[in-house]
Amino acid sequence: MKVEELKGIIEVARGVKPADIILKGAKVVNVFSGEIENGDVAILGDRIVGVGDYEGEKEIDLDGGYLVPGLIDSHVHIESSMVSPVQYARGVLPCGTTTVFADPHEITNVMGIEGFELMLKMSEGIPLKVFLNVPSCVPATHMETSGACLEADAIAKLLREERVSGLAEMMNYPGVLFAVPDVLAKLEAAEGRIIDGHAPGLTGKDLDAYVSAGVMSDHECTEPKEALEKLSTGMHIMIREGTGARNLDALLPMVTTANERRIMFASDDLHPPELLNRGHINYMVRRAMKYGREPVSAIRMGSLNAAEYFRKWNLGAIAPGYIADIVWMPDLKKFEPQIVWANGRMVVDGGEIIEADWMEASTTCRNTMNPAPFTAKDFQVKAGEGARAHVIGLVKDQIVTENLVEELKVEKGLAVADVERDILKICVIERHKATGNIGIGFVKGFGLQKGALASSVGHDAHNLIVVGTNDADMELAAKHVVSTRGGFAAASDGKILGSLELPIAGLMSYDTIEDVDLQITGLKHISKKMGCRIEDPFMLLGFLALEVIPHLKLTDMGLVDVDKFEIIKLMV
Amino acid sequence: MKVEELKGIIEVARGVKPADIILKGAKVVNVFSGEIENGDVAILGDRIVGVGDYEGEKEIDLDGGYLVPGLIDSHVHIESSMVSPVQYARGVLPCGTTTVFADPHEITNVMGIEGFELMLKMSEGIPLKVFLNVPSCVPATHMETSGACLEADAIAKLLREERVSGLAEMMNYPGVLFAVPDVLAKLEAAEGRIIDGHAPGLTGKDLDAYVSAGVMSDHECTEPKEALEKLSTGMHIMIREGTGARNLDALLPMVTTANERRIMFASDDLHPPELLNRGHINYMVRRAMKYGREPVSAIRMGSLNAAEYFRKWNLGAIAPGYIADIVWMPDLKKFEPQIVWANGRMVVDGGEIIEADWMEASTTCRNTMNPAPFTAKDFQVKAGEGARAHVIGLVKDQIVTENLVEELKVEKGLAVADVERDILKICVIERHKATGNIGIGFVKGFGLQKGALASSVGHDAHNLIVVGTNDADMELAAKHVVSTRGGFAAASDGKILGSLELPIAGLMSYDTIEDVDLQITGLKHISKKMGCRIEDPFMLLGFLALEVIPHLKLTDMGLVDVDKFEIIKLMV
Repeated sequence: MKVEELKGIIEVARGVKPADIILKGAKVVNVFSGEIENGDVAILGDRIVGVGDYEGEKEIDLDGGYLVPGLIDSHVHIESSMVSPVQYARGVLPCGTTTVFADPHEITNVMGIEGFELMLKMSEGIPLKVFLNVPSCVPATHMETSGACLEADAIAKLLREERVSGLAEMMNYPGVLFAVPDVLAKLEAAEGRIIDGHAPGLTGKDLDAYVSAGVMSDHECTEPKEALEKLSTGMHIMIREGTGARNLDALLPMVTTANERRIMFASDDLHPPELLNRGHINYMVRRAMKYGREPVSAIRMGSLNAAEYFRKWNLGAIAPGYIADIVWMPDLKKFEPQIVWANGRMVVDGGEIIEADWMEASTTCRNTMNPAPFTAKDFQVKAGEGARAHVIGLVKDQIVTENLVEELKVEKGLAVADVERDILKICVIERHKATGNIGIGFVKGFGLQKGALASSVGHDAHNLIVVGTNDADMELAAKHVVSTRGGFAAASDGKILGSLELPIAGLMSYDTIEDVDLQITGLKHISKKMGCRIEDPFMLLGFLALEVIPHLKLTDMGLVDVDKFEIIKLMV
Repeated sequence: MKVEELKGIIEVARGVKPADIILKGAKVVNVFSGEIENGDVAILGDRIVGVGDYEGEKEIDLDGGYLVPGLIDSHVHIESSMVSPVQYARGVLPCGTTTVFADPHEITNVMGIEGFELMLKMSEGIPLKVFLNVPSCVPATHMETSGACLEADAIAKLLREERVSGLAEMMNYPGVLFAVPDVLAKLEAAEGRIIDGHAPGLTGKDLDAYVSAGVMSDHECTEPKEALEKLSTGMHIMIREGTGARNLDALLPMVTTANERRIMFASDDLHPPELLNRGHINYMVRRAMKYGREPVSAIRMGSLNAAEYFRKWNLGAIAPGYIADIVWMPDLKKFEPQIVWANGRMVVDGGEIIEADWMEASTTCRNTMNPAPFTAKDFQVKAGEGARAHVIGLVKDQIVTENLVEELKVEKGLAVADVERDILKICVIERHKATGNIGIGFVKGFGLQKGALASSVGHDAHNLIVVGTNDADMELAAKHVVSTRGGFAAASDGKILGSLELPIAGLMSYDTIEDVDLQITGLKHISKKMGCRIEDPFMLLGFLALEVIPHLKLTDMGLVDVDKFEIIKLMV
């Protein structure tokens, strides 16, 4: 801080000059002492300068209630909320979230450095502090065509940018353990920076190796024993509670007063319905208190501990010198934020976001849907009678799949969908570089009786995935998604029944979370009417190309046997 | 770390290749889990790569006992140990200390940037990790002549050097509170770095202002209430246990499992006798356990917590990726280090330092004793009969003094020492810049019956202080100190009775701590025989010039009324 700034802060903190804003009459949660204290919070500019008996130009008498530090999400993929950073901020600020540490690997898989920089630009000048970690695993593997790749030199360059907090989840732990040069080069590029991890089930010597190589955190723990082992190596644990993956209840038992300092909260992937209905980090804090965690401890996991892990020394507390990210709520146990200040400015009141100029997002994204021209003919599979193929078997409520072998229905020398046996055709159309790649397979378990569903959200390379009962509807649905610059579509009998536009990289909408949620709800309803037995078919579609999750997946390059880690032929 | 290094670490951590050293058979204190665990500690080069079941080129079977992280002193003035960094390391390594964060403001007051860089050079290539903080208060005030001054631009430059960990204790808290531009410029120069504090008794809004300005720690707490208030602002607390200032017993009651993460141990000023007889950070850990702190918590305050405060992410724990600074002891409660590894090398065995090349210190210091020529005549004070003067009154066991008014003994128109009433003459001779300044005063309470004592250690400017019963012996003692390039001397009846050479900046010896201790003991004995009633007269002499400690002090510029913060006339 410059001398003049320091002088101003000191004078106000000492009570010699009035503060800009005083928050009076509420109890203040002190994450350092663990106490709930009395005191006015004095704010000058974007900063807290003192807690005590102060006067200010503007005095807000809260007349009770509690002031809590702004909440922090330690690991999130904003793209999973399916809205732009501005809309995401509109959505999470009322939850009391004032800072997120995001890994934009979805958009980076589509657009490379351009995508990363677009996320930086789109999150500029908004009250939510968005820090980005540089994706470490783009592309995820060599078995799908992503839009770009991010190598060590590009990573080193991005790490130098402002609001970049470190290297994002090193999911490729086998690459680390087998000392693959490209992977180690990325760790080398990130030396001295925060390096996040992702290593479900890693244990013993392999875990020690992963940590020795510099990886500092993990958010994939599903049970206490795993988390405790990781903590004992010095790793920080992010307890993750998202839409699909929910680890909070399972892990809370392992949190103690002694180890809590190295534990923080994260959402990872939170879709619109859960964000709107369940909440964000506030939900996790509330639930932790309900479980029995002492309130200030629960709050610390949702604030200070994340700030300190990421070495943001002026975030995560209501204390002199800290940024004025503050949340007011009438009742601590209920933990329902009503007023939120970010950088010293009120952004949420009465539980609602305050409409403001920063919401007029002006940054747009170019069209990223760039498949080679295709028609239904390109989905055809030649086959003889009795042809048997590897079929992806869906597993109820899971993203793992089974590697089934089934006899396909063959008509006129072509293998087709078999609605009676619920074996549908599925295609992944490469859509970044117009390679013309189309991976074709069959999947059992969707339940569709008619039509097709298409999506441009397909982890991790986000090619265009379409599943359906007939090639014509599949072509229609897929082409509709292309025409809307990305999104979801449901087609049946030659008509588009419903769609959601996701024009930002084919992943995110410019609309509000509420509007996107409505559209998704509509699409789920339509899918059900089409016979779909899956609760959230588009989310599931999104994981059918994810070739790092077992056991059988489909990418633009073809069927992937995940266990053998190789592309295999469709026919047995 | 480079890719090749990473590869090597990963291979050994995974157990694919043997480690360099395995420490087997002891229990391992885990500062993260808080548990005492079983496991071999695998070391590769200077680093721990795993704790588990390993093999190595060299396997050391400890056959029981405990492995503890190397201890860390979070705030120390090495000059107070009166020996060079190399000898200091020889002294503290057997105590289990492997890292210190030092504030070399003593030598910097004498030699400026040159002194700071000399300390860096003298602590290069030794097993003890010495990090230096850049002194923030050189000179202490304008009321004494120091050898140099360190302004904001010099501070900024030094902060960029390797092994420099931050800005040292900002003792001038009034300067911060009154927003003095020079002081704020120093804080500005240190932005983003660790900034240590020193603010005994600071509370309320003034404390908030000090912390808002960027100060992060304090080591001056004397009671729990003070420490708890500081902790609640976000400050880190260094519990200080030195020679004179001992706060450990008073502060231990305020340490809790919840707040311990922000509390660490420091020695500040530890003189040779205490270092040798009491111990260092090991003493503090032992005593904390005795008080009732859970062992791993006590150990954390002496290791991890200091490392994390200073953002040294690879120090303070026995865990993968951490530097191999490890201490072995047979019994945890007794906490008596027997073997110490620093950077993966054994440096202490059987409780004794292992003699090695690094001890052959080759860096020397130029002669810093540079007073203008002086004789006994320059100590003369003209006075009439019944002359009354401000006299410094010593207070038993304290470094505060009283501002007394006494009638001086006058002989032949000169005020002289009055042995019967124990009012001795004291002079402070400027010795950096040959200004010719000599501050003259009188002091009550030393008890000397004959002779004079002289010292070049005089906080903070370290001018040449001499107290005595007659001018001739004072001249002799003072000139002897000059001739030895600095140190202590006792003179009586025209003879030097004893002396200690401190040729490094007039503050430190090249000898071992043991030898220096012996010489100090001898000097104390001699002083006693000369009638001295003070237990450690040279230490006390060292504080009689410290013009920031109340109430009456003497510098080369004259008598200082500390409460009025100004130089006053000798005569009332």
